[in-house]
Amino acid sequence: MPETQPAPLFERLAIIGIGLLGSSLAHAVRKTGAVGSLALADAAPDVVRQAEKLGLGDVYFTDPAEAVSGADLVILCVPVGASGAVAEAISRNLHPGTLVSDVGSVKDAVHKAVSPHMPDGVHFIGGHPVAGTEQSGPHAGFAELFEQRWCILTPSDGTDPHHLARLRAFWERLGSDVDIMDTKHHDLVLAITSHVPHLIAYNIVGTAADLESITRSEVMKFSAGGFRDFTRIAASDPTMWRDVFLNNKDAVLEMLARFNEDLISLQRAIRWNDGDALFDLFTRTRTIRRGIIEAGQETAEPDFGRQHGAVAGDSD
Amino acid sequence: MPETQPAPLFERLAIIGIGLLGSSLAHAVRKTGAVGSLALADAAPDVVRQAEKLGLGDVYFTDPAEAVSGADLVILCVPVGASGAVAEAISRNLHPGTLVSDVGSVKDAVHKAVSPHMPDGVHFIGGHPVAGTEQSGPHAGFAELFEQRWCILTPSDGTDPHHLARLRAFWERLGSDVDIMDTKHHDLVLAITSHVPHLIAYNIVGTAADLESITRSEVMKFSAGGFRDFTRIAASDPTMWRDVFLNNKDAVLEMLARFNEDLISLQRAIRWNDGDALFDLFTRTRTIRRGIIEAGQETAEPDFGRQHGAVAGDSD
Repeated sequence: MPETQPAPLFERLAIIGIGLLGSSLAHAVRKTGAVGSLALADAAPDVVRQAEKLGLGDVYFTDPAEAVSGADLVILCVPVGASGAVAEAISRNLHPGTLVSDVGSVKDAVHKAVSPHMPDGVHFIGGHPVAGTEQSGPHAGFAELFEQRWCILTPSDGTDPHHLARLRAFWERLGSDVDIMDTKHHDLVLAITSHVPHLIAYNIVGTAADLESITRSEVMKFSAGGFRDFTRIAASDPTMWRDVFLNNKDAVLEMLARFNEDLISLQRAIRWNDGDALFDLFTRTRTIRRGIIEAGQETAEPDFGRQHGAVAGDSD
Repeated sequence: MPETQPAPLFERLAIIGIGLLGSSLAHAVRKTGAVGSLALADAAPDVVRQAEKLGLGDVYFTDPAEAVSGADLVILCVPVGASGAVAEAISRNLHPGTLVSDVGSVKDAVHKAVSPHMPDGVHFIGGHPVAGTEQSGPHAGFAELFEQRWCILTPSDGTDPHHLARLRAFWERLGSDVDIMDTKHHDLVLAITSHVPHLIAYNIVGTAADLESITRSEVMKFSAGGFRDFTRIAASDPTMWRDVFLNNKDAVLEMLARFNEDLISLQRAIRWNDGDALFDLFTRTRTIRRGIIEAGQETAEPDFGRQHGAVAGDSD
């Protein structure tokens, strides 16, 4: 650890699940010296071997219970549907004073699944770094994933403020801004900013793939007209996203109903040539983009800063 | 013009409409030496002044009829709803042998609006470069916009193959790949690869902006979860897109009906905990992304190659 780095915030971190998030966390804690040592676990032996080959941690396990032994911070980086089972599996090796958190995109269901398995003196506080890419697996991670991104922590009524402060300091060390929410509000906010966008992206890519009158080759060739933007998030991890929808059902269905109402009304405007209604919406939505850029959550460059034209070594 | 460039393909090009497409065309013909001289016209005097300040052309006009005088190639770069009126306005100054084309995102309605105004001996062939960014106006253009992108030409039954070949050579000079389609098939393909994606992007951004329980600031802060990808195309030019929907009504409504059917079925799968149905779709859609990358229409870098982390001078 370079001498310029501040002291570690935790002695030993155990990361359970070495996918995009788990491997990015591993890179980030190493880069920032946020923890003294790092144990990594994944149920898939092949994934553990890849992580070891990449040198992501200090010790490696396929059994999550072994990995958490001696850890004062445990972060679950598994699909949210697996959180309860993993919590149950590790509970016997969690010692009092340990802080347990996660990175799941759904918080209420995770709190309900994990909390009952926490032994006395072990503190569970849900976490959700709102950051990611469409790639998966231990090779996809990188240290900068969390920089200038929001991490939402979801304490419950009984959460010790001291432990909440320690978890906040941890994420801030990785470069994140931290926000605090209750689990239900988190799930509602993420339903519209993340879950429904993923669902409609998956959906339109499916619709396009199923057309009889247009070939897949045509869909791909002419995707630069807008469609290809949707294919990025529709390439995200299927298991993770299946679990998100099944575990945030109420909020997703509520937001989806609103989306549908609005879409039907646009459809009607097109059918009845109501150009003013279309123009008004299309004008209003521009300001949201500007707000996101000003909030530092997006590049101001056109087309996401994608490279245009023939650049050697670039596939675009 | 550098000596290494091949000879111009047309003596004089007139571009009518100096927005993103018109100004990009101006940059591209200059870079490639595709034409001998360049006349630019826009109905807005302010836009003409900006174009002149940027040095985009050789001569500048607010009257499109003056601009086309002496041109052997005319390209309309106006919102598709304005195509008919512009065609009528320029017709008296089009001389026999002139090739007239456009860059509109809808082709059947444009053919029907423009063709009746073409004098004898003047050849109209619709064109659509499938390329763009979310930005608008004469400052937004750049020469590389068309490189490695498809340009679709839509000749009609009576089109002279010689003129079609000349127009193809023109777009190939700008770096585009050229495909030939009939107008109705074009409109169907673009409805799914471009028009419906834009509509649902506009729609979800509107839905998010209207929520009572979630603030706009929350929507913006947590947009990195997926939503921000949609805001890019929902920041596109409102006039252009209003005209697209009004002029490709049948194909858009047809594709939208399919999108809705599929979405309702996903909604049902979520409500009834049908995880397999979700997982199957989410797995299938990944292959489409790969196909687009292999077709050279997208970067293979994660997250569109957006910069992550704190980079000086970058807003991301």
